[in-house]
Amino acid sequence: MGGEEHKLCWLDCDPGHDDAMAIILAGHSPGLTLLGVSTVAGNQTVEKVTANALSVLAAAGLQHIDVVAGASRPLLRPAPLLCAEIHGESGLDGPLGGPVLPPAPHAAVPGKAAVVMFQRIAAAHLQLAAKGGEQRVQLIATAALTNVALLLTLFPEVIDMIEVTIMGGCLGLGNTGPVMEFNIQTDPEAARMVFESGVRLTMVPLEVTHTALVTTSVLQRVRTRHPSAFLQLTADLLSFFAETYLAVFQMPDPPLHDPCAVAWVLAPQLFKTKLMRVDVETTSVLSAGQTVCDVWNQSSAPKNCTVCMEMDAGHFWDLLIAAIHAADKQSPLNETADGGSGCKAAP
Amino acid sequence: MGGEEHKLCWLDCDPGHDDAMAIILAGHSPGLTLLGVSTVAGNQTVEKVTANALSVLAAAGLQHIDVVAGASRPLLRPAPLLCAEIHGESGLDGPLGGPVLPPAPHAAVPGKAAVVMFQRIAAAHLQLAAKGGEQRVQLIATAALTNVALLLTLFPEVIDMIEVTIMGGCLGLGNTGPVMEFNIQTDPEAARMVFESGVRLTMVPLEVTHTALVTTSVLQRVRTRHPSAFLQLTADLLSFFAETYLAVFQMPDPPLHDPCAVAWVLAPQLFKTKLMRVDVETTSVLSAGQTVCDVWNQSSAPKNCTVCMEMDAGHFWDLLIAAIHAADKQSPLNETADGGSGCKAAP
Amino acid sequence: MGGEEHKLCWLDCDPGHDDAMAIILAGHSPGLTLLGVSTVAGNQTVEKVTANALSVLAAAGLQHIDVVAGASRPLLRPAPLLCAEIHGESGLDGPLGGPVLPPAPHAAVPGKAAVVMFQRIAAAHLQLAAKGGEQRVQLIATAALTNVALLLTLFPEVIDMIEVTIMGGCLGLGNTGPVMEFNIQTDPEAARMVFESGVRLTMVPLEVTHTALVTTSVLQRVRTRHPSAFLQLTADLLSFFAETYLAVFQMPDPPLHDPCAVAWVLAPQLFKTKLMRVDVETTSVLSAGQTVCDVWNQSSAPKNCTVCMEMDAGHFWDLLIAAIHAADKQSPLNETADGGSGCKAAP
Amino acid sequence: MGGEEHKLCWLDCDPGHDDAMAIILAGHSPGLTLLGVSTVAGNQTVEKVTANALSVLAAAGLQHIDVVAGASRPLLRPAPLLCAEIHGESGLDGPLGGPVLPPAPHAAVPGKAAVVMFQRIAAAHLQLAAKGGEQRVQLIATAALTNVALLLTLFPEVIDMIEVTIMGGCLGLGNTGPVMEFNIQTDPEAARMVFESGVRLTMVPLEVTHTALVTTSVLQRVRTRHPSAFLQLTADLLSFFAETYLAVFQMPDPPLHDPCAVAWVLAPQLFKTKLMRVDVETTSVLSAGQTVCDVWNQSSAPKNCTVCMEMDAGHFWDLLIAAIHAADKQSPLNETADGGSGCKAAP
Repeated sequence: MGGEEHKLCWLDCDPGHDDAMAIILAGHSPGLTLLGVSTVAGNQTVEKVTANALSVLAAAGLQHIDVVAGASRPLLRPAPLLCAEIHGESGLDGPLGGPVLPPAPHAAVPGKAAVVMFQRIAAAHLQLAAKGGEQRVQLIATAALTNVALLLTLFPEVIDMIEVTIMGGCLGLGNTGPVMEFNIQTDPEAARMVFESGVRLTMVPLEVTHTALVTTSVLQRVRTRHPSAFLQLTADLLSFFAETYLAVFQMPDPPLHDPCAVAWVLAPQLFKTKLMRVDVETTSVLSAGQTVCDVWNQSSAPKNCTVCMEMDAGHFWDLLIAAIHAADKQSPLNETADGGSGCKAAP
Repeated sequence: MGGEEHKLCWLDCDPGHDDAMAIILAGHSPGLTLLGVSTVAGNQTVEKVTANALSVLAAAGLQHIDVVAGASRPLLRPAPLLCAEIHGESGLDGPLGGPVLPPAPHAAVPGKAAVVMFQRIAAAHLQLAAKGGEQRVQLIATAALTNVALLLTLFPEVIDMIEVTIMGGCLGLGNTGPVMEFNIQTDPEAARMVFESGVRLTMVPLEVTHTALVTTSVLQRVRTRHPSAFLQLTADLLSFFAETYLAVFQMPDPPLHDPCAVAWVLAPQLFKTKLMRVDVETTSVLSAGQTVCDVWNQSSAPKNCTVCMEMDAGHFWDLLIAAIHAADKQSPLNETADGGSGCKAAP
Repeated sequence: MGGEEHKLCWLDCDPGHDDAMAIILAGHSPGLTLLGVSTVAGNQTVEKVTANALSVLAAAGLQHIDVVAGASRPLLRPAPLLCAEIHGESGLDGPLGGPVLPPAPHAAVPGKAAVVMFQRIAAAHLQLAAKGGEQRVQLIATAALTNVALLLTLFPEVIDMIEVTIMGGCLGLGNTGPVMEFNIQTDPEAARMVFESGVRLTMVPLEVTHTALVTTSVLQRVRTRHPSAFLQLTADLLSFFAETYLAVFQMPDPPLHDPCAVAWVLAPQLFKTKLMRVDVETTSVLSAGQTVCDVWNQSSAPKNCTVCMEMDAGHFWDLLIAAIHAADKQSPLNETADGGSGCKAAP
Repeated sequence: MGGEEHKLCWLDCDPGHDDAMAIILAGHSPGLTLLGVSTVAGNQTVEKVTANALSVLAAAGLQHIDVVAGASRPLLRPAPLLCAEIHGESGLDGPLGGPVLPPAPHAAVPGKAAVVMFQRIAAAHLQLAAKGGEQRVQLIATAALTNVALLLTLFPEVIDMIEVTIMGGCLGLGNTGPVMEFNIQTDPEAARMVFESGVRLTMVPLEVTHTALVTTSVLQRVRTRHPSAFLQLTADLLSFFAETYLAVFQMPDPPLHDPCAVAWVLAPQLFKTKLMRVDVETTSVLSAGQTVCDVWNQSSAPKNCTVCMEMDAGHFWDLLIAAIHAADKQSPLNETADGGSGCKAAP
């Protein structure tokens, strides 16, 4: 992927174990600059996921990247569906229960996510425009689309500055509902606003993320032979995630959804895609939050979404493990009292 | 399947190429007695599909089996979705266009399908009850569920006399809509009435019927080396069906949906099933007619449907081809002027 | 109303106090012949309202008129909304609680309402046709439209034989829901089937029936100075109804809904009407069962319903009280041991 | 109304003839300070209604009050329903067609309505809090609720700073739909967000505003014997409005909806109200935008809206005509070449 252009991205997320890996992939991949992170209620309350985003950035040596807190609830639905049975009470629990990462030494920046996102994205877009070319800022959303919908609605001029990639939706079976994926089901109206906004949109659905399985061999590659404190914590997070997925969905190897959306921005050549009409169901009591994907091209409505249909999972893991190891090199968690990394070889 | 109990069945259908094969399988399988056939608008108008049912029965040597015409339109929807692009203008076209079977020499019995179905089923159930045991009449529906809904609503006492097996619905992708299968989409409210009626219900969805593919080798087994007039016509019907499926869905071998539902009644051991909650979407403009299948067991509503998940397609074809060859032995189409079958070898 | 043509009517109802008055008005008005009565679950279970219909007919000297029991539940909704708080546990309670009318000496005729209705209506229509002219049988429905929907669906040929008049719906405020009237709310899908069937349809909504108030002076006119047993029971029924309406809706004089629909058939000159598009809401969780009336003529859908907008309530009461007094003359309840009426003056 | 507290208000509107009168009433009533005006697409495009708001303020001597432009379209619906048949192509046409007011000499302030509203309201609330007491800023909305929904969603802390009064909704018949009022129908989802936000809310529905009729005698009171340029233009606007209402709704005297909401804030003693549950229909294709008002108190959901049921229309007109005459005294339109007002008495 050497000769490709460098991209600027913003990440909107609700960490969450797989969001944490998305942060690491976005922050430690050559070819991407992570402009900032916004948060939204979903896997846990917005307070908890904001603290988690800050912790992950600090642990991964990315404490210079700003975090801004966003919506505490969906646009029209009474309360977010929290996902404690998958991500624990903190939203980022480890194998012993409770959070494994230390709290971050700094706080989120003030302001509302949609407003700050607009300011930062518009500034970045000016930089890109100054260089000439048609490049857009990459907005990656791995959570409910509440912040993104507010951004696009309040600042419609941003639509021409960005490309949006979401982890969310499904063509067939869902996860938190029979035919509904969690992120879209959490705020169906926000999702519908994004899908109908006219913004350039790519969707990485469950059918793809369910091929990004954290197998035992993946875990071994994360840990390496002499794991540092950072790598050990990373492996602990993935192990906790594997345990809850096994308990809830009887899946022996859990799917690591969110980094797949970052991978699409980073390496689109790893994906097979199809452009189609996707509508978000908002009215049915049975299926609100379903992404109705017009695979057979039977709709008369315009095609509005590039849907990822397949991913090269092997190369996906290569990208993610490289990013984890790059983060490991800069992680302050590896600095011990003796000034060395936690994985120093014995003399 | 020798030692199994003999079953009595009624077939509600809208022939249609695959319905024609369902009639043959139901009428010419040891272990099943076909009590009668009712028709409903769907693949074509109720007039055309009634004529087709009569023609198929006559061609297959089953002219003693009565046909009664049913609903000419769905319960609440303005007009049936006709399927001329798959089944042709007659509903049972052949490769040259137009119908291949001769018209039947007799007419449908008078009366309304729901009323006649109740009378015949209740009489058959009395026979079964007289023999002792708990056996029920098998109602197989391979079309929109309008007649079945009217039967269950007008005569709720029939609910304890029957088991219903439908070809219809899907867990993931649909055929005539993004997530909707044709039979359910044609009359969603009727389907909802059936699914919520409390009747014993088995659903054979697209995921199963899409494994019953009419391959070239299947066609060869139908034809045999010296095909009779009946076998030639049967192969012609299947060839036409293959052509339209290729044109509309780009599927090289078409799925022969309807006989799969008969096969479930005939040989349940060929299927893997899962009991679950299935709700029919009736309100959404995006997805009315979707069968929302609670695969993850997340619904609090009672389980109401045995969903077929897999079928042994090899044995399915054995059953169907045996039935076709049994029909061939009795087909009046094979009787020529010289008293012989149309495929007699030259002297 | 002297020179008007004589009309034949069928009454579909769920007695219910106001249904009882509708039976009396339909059975004892010159100019109308009551062909029969069918019942449906609503104000009470179908068993109770069937017994009530038989009791009312017997008490009113109409025991020669057949009753047939219909649907025990709505087409798609799980259970009928019963109205015990208005009509008591029996559906026709009196001031001391419990039923005031003696049970009928005979039973309902066998068969299903929709089938029997078709047979009787078709026979009556043949009679009318034999006389020449274009007259149709009048089908008056003062309950949920389940039976009527099944009749029109199973026997679409009846559509050209009848005119349907319903008590039901509203333009503005409802009664059992914010914008829903009880009969339509009980089975919205059945109502939608009737409104979309193409049948000639008149609707007598709450706005009209709320002007047919049982005032003290009305009660005095019912009782007369020397009330018979029949008149006393009639007054008792109306008094019970007044008490429950006061308790539930804080209305001092209760509206006698159902006979208004009979009055429209009997004396249309008492009504102001407007032809308009009326759609029945079936999908909203807030307002399923609302009759959405296009008063401003903004819909592009064809006009399908004559909506009664105003009624001459004074003349309505004249008609109804005349019918009550005619029933009184034939009521077997007035025959005492001494062969005389219960209210005979002493010599 | 002498001893009453002084109130601070913000007006969100889409002028529109009746919005223009709402601006004048809010800007020229003792007891109210108008903090600013925001606009939203509705009666016309947001560009036109913003220009109109500026023109009205300038004409009424209120050019010191800021205007900020808001949403150009509803949150989820594709395009606003424009009301050119009532308000003309400019949104504020006069009897000869085209706008009657001169363009404003200044422009709207920069920024997005929801953000600027929050800044101004929060600052005003600080002022009120500094004085002690519990007084809140009054947010009056006489248009689609898009801006208000965005304000409450993006800045939930504002919920405790304000009371919201809307002109909108209906209990029975609607205006732009059978049961839908224009402002709510334009953006049903925004309205639902406001009604479910928990903010203190009063609704002035069509049933009330339809009693604020611009009769001939009202017009005469506006004009006075020697009308100034300002009064003549005001009367022209009202006359145009009367003509279009007559043409579209056959109402001889048009209802002046929007100032009724200002009157509620100014003089609540003129109104009879009822606290109840109000839900906004967002899913039905028949009735999206209906305000379903639980008049009978049958809902289990908490009461969320004070609904105005009646208004003292005589005193309403006293308030409005006083405001119009106060505006007349300050209108720059009355300054003629000779430096005097157009209605000055001769010496």
